[in-house]
Amino acid sequence: MLKFINSSSRLASYFTDVPKVLSRSIHLTREMSGNRVAVVLAGSGVYDGSEVHEASAVWVHLSRGGADVSFFAPDIPQMHVINHTKGEPSENETRNVLVESARIARGKITALSGLSSGNFDAVVFPGGFGAAKNLSDFAVNGAGCTVNPDVERVIKEFHQAKKPIGLCCISPVLAAKVIPGCSVTVGHDSEEGGRWPYAGTAKAIQEMGSKHVNKDINEAHVDEENKIVTAPAFMCETKVHEIFDSVGSMVNGVLKLC
Amino acid sequence: MLKFINSSSRLASYFTDVPKVLSRSIHLTREMSGNRVAVVLAGSGVYDGSEVHEASAVWVHLSRGGADVSFFAPDIPQMHVINHTKGEPSENETRNVLVESARIARGKITALSGLSSGNFDAVVFPGGFGAAKNLSDFAVNGAGCTVNPDVERVIKEFHQAKKPIGLCCISPVLAAKVIPGCSVTVGHDSEEGGRWPYAGTAKAIQEMGSKHVNKDINEAHVDEENKIVTAPAFMCETKVHEIFDSVGSMVNGVLKLC
Repeated sequence: MLKFINSSSRLASYFTDVPKVLSRSIHLTREMSGNRVAVVLAGSGVYDGSEVHEASAVWVHLSRGGADVSFFAPDIPQMHVINHTKGEPSENETRNVLVESARIARGKITALSGLSSGNFDAVVFPGGFGAAKNLSDFAVNGAGCTVNPDVERVIKEFHQAKKPIGLCCISPVLAAKVIPGCSVTVGHDSEEGGRWPYAGTAKAIQEMGSKHVNKDINEAHVDEENKIVTAPAFMCETKVHEIFDSVGSMVNGVLKLC
Repeated sequence: MLKFINSSSRLASYFTDVPKVLSRSIHLTREMSGNRVAVVLAGSGVYDGSEVHEASAVWVHLSRGGADVSFFAPDIPQMHVINHTKGEPSENETRNVLVESARIARGKITALSGLSSGNFDAVVFPGGFGAAKNLSDFAVNGAGCTVNPDVERVIKEFHQAKKPIGLCCISPVLAAKVIPGCSVTVGHDSEEGGRWPYAGTAKAIQEMGSKHVNKDINEAHVDEENKIVTAPAFMCETKVHEIFDSVGSMVNGVLKLC
C-alpha cells in the first residue's frame, strides 16, 4: 500500500509499493467476467499519441458493458514528441509508444506483439494522431500509407476470426487500409464550415479501395459483413460529452457483435 | 486545416496548421454559455500527474452540465517522471507540469498564475499523484505538507468569494490543508481488504485539523458551509465506470452550488 503518511522513508516506501498496487489491480481485473476486449493505444496525447478522452471513453463504456479490458501498444519510438502547448515538435526528445500509453492504462499494458486474437472477443482502436503517426504513417503518406506490422497482423487476425473491430476518429483509416473493400465512417466528407475539419480523410479512404459512409456525431457505422464498427468522435468539432457519446455508440456496436 | 492527404509538403502543412486548429477550438469554446469552471491539472498520468480518466470525466460531466471549461496548470517542473510500465522514476528525465497537462487539455491551457476567481464560477481539481507531488508535497510530507503557492492562492480566493471548489481522489487533501476546519471525503478510513488502499489519507486529513467523512464510491460529500465538494474516485479499487460516476457526483454537486 502507498503510505502517504509514513513517518520515515516516505519516498522509499512509495517507490517500493507502486508495483504492489499494480499487481493487485491486475488481480482484480482477472476476476472480472464478460467479453474480453483488447484496446490498442498509440501513446498519450492527441497530437502525437492516443487522444486521451477517446481512450478513456472507450474504457468507461467497455467497463459499463461488462467487458474485461486489456491494453496493448507497440513497443516502438514515437514518430515525434509534440509540445501540446505549442502544437510544435519538441526537438531532441524521444518517447516510447508503449511507455507513454501506460499513462492511460495506469501501468497495466502489454506490448502489441503479444496480442493474439485467440485470447480476445474484440479489439478497439481509439483515435488521436498517434494512429496516423505511430500505428501507421497516414499523417505523412495519406492513402499510400503503410501500417505498423503488428497493427496489420492484429486487424487481419480479428477479421479472419470474424471477431468485431472497433475504431473511432482517425483510426478507421487503419481498417480501410488493411481490409480494402470494407466500409467505415470518419464523420462527414465535407468541412461544413469547420464542423468536420479533417473531412479530406473520407477521400483518402475511398482511394484505399474502401467505402466511406457519412455519419453524424451521434451515429456509429456498422459494416456487418466485416464486423467493423466506426464512429467520428473528435473528427467533429463539438462538445466533449458528445465525443464521449460518439465513442459509446462505437463501443456498444462492438459489444453487440461479440 | 490539417491536410492528411495533401500531395506535397505534408508534414510541413501539418506543423503549420496545428495552431489554426487550436485557435478555432478556443473560438468555439468562447461561444459556449453557462457556468465558467476552471479545471486545475497537475501533469498527465496517474503516478506523476493528473489521473487522466478522472480529468476526462471532469470535463465530460462539466460539458454535459453546460459549463464552459478552461484548463490551468502550474508552469513548474514535475517532482519526477514515472515510467508507468514499471512504476519507477525515469532517471535523467524532466518534464513540465503545464506542458504535460496540455495533453489532457488538447493544447488549450493557461499557467495557473493567470487563474483569477473573478473570472470563474467554480474550480475543480481532478486527482492523481500529481496533486500530491506537483500541486503539493503531500506524497513526501503527509499532513505536514506544503501546498504550491498558486494552488493555495486559488483555493483561498474561491473560498473567500464563496464559489464552489470540487476535488476528487487524493486532491481533497489540498482543501483540507488550505482551509483547515473544512470537511472532505477520500472514501473510507480503513482498507477493508484492499478496496480502499489509500485509507491512511483520512487520518492525515484529521491531523491537518479538517474533518474526514466516510463516503462510498457512489457518493460525493458536500461541505455546504465552505462550498467544498469531494468524491473518492480512484481512491477506491473498483471498475472504471464507477470511477466515472464518482467524478460525476462531485461535478454535479459543484454545478448545483454555482
